[in-house]
Amino acid sequence: MNVNFINPFLESLLNVLQTMANMSLTPGKPNLKKDNLAKGDVSGLIGMVGPQTKGSLSITFEEPLILEIMNSMLGEKPSSINEEVTDLVGEITNMVTGGAKNLLGDKGYEFEMATPIVVSGKGHTIAHKSDGKKIIMPFTSNWGNAYIEICFES
Amino acid sequence: MNVNFINPFLESLLNVLQTMANMSLTPGKPNLKKDNLAKGDVSGLIGMVGPQTKGSLSITFEEPLILEIMNSMLGEKPSSINEEVTDLVGEITNMVTGGAKNLLGDKGYEFEMATPIVVSGKGHTIAHKSDGKKIIMPFTSNWGNAYIEICFES
Repeated sequence: MNVNFINPFLESLLNVLQTMANMSLTPGKPNLKKDNLAKGDVSGLIGMVGPQTKGSLSITFEEPLILEIMNSMLGEKPSSINEEVTDLVGEITNMVTGGAKNLLGDKGYEFEMATPIVVSGKGHTIAHKSDGKKIIMPFTSNWGNAYIEICFES
Repeated sequence: MNVNFINPFLESLLNVLQTMANMSLTPGKPNLKKDNLAKGDVSGLIGMVGPQTKGSLSITFEEPLILEIMNSMLGEKPSSINEEVTDLVGEITNMVTGGAKNLLGDKGYEFEMATPIVVSGKGHTIAHKSDGKKIIMPFTSNWGNAYIEICFES
């Protein structure tokens, strides 16, 4: 998996949060995931299936960050992760993957998206189970961290 | 989503655990999921994409049950959920979905599977974010509960 494949996901998350919540995250360096370092409190997960490849994506947020994203969008901050928050994480997951799908489609990489699943639970960890390399992209902010992980078999 | 669509997943989980771990779970009544009742400690999740539909599946285990499944298969019981356990949950997720895919393919319902993701975290909850109906299938055993949830847009 080369950088052409990674950047569309990274850019897409930055765009979505800038547009929806007027929020700028700071992207760290994408790297190969060796163990389950991405710990978070709410994650959106989605499967991808294409003619040449299949894979999975997750976007994980720490609780204070996703609550601040809600606050920026709605002017109202829930005290904890509720159904409105998980709906938002599902939407972000769809939008980020859809944005990357468009960018990658332009380059000839095609895939279809499944529907998202959102997991809530303090400090859960995620393991993408596939033979492909796992890439983790960390993002930092004043309110906490987020992580995108992608994995494609090919 | 009719019962023809649900039973293959239910049967497939029972088959897989009987074959791999010589373990019989007791299936409860499948029902429409109204809120996030399926709480567990480790879950396998997978996306599905077909020409007429797309969706997602999750299989959630309580910790004592999945550790007993490891014990039945390997004669050795880890003290907690480790990477061997999450690998096993990923495999079970693939096998159950693959088994159901074969049964459903015979009936003319076709879909491709993405790659599985495994989530670990005490008492996490799962929300399938799609317009389709969510079906939850509970399973009980002497060691704890398991849940399959499936959701298809159509």
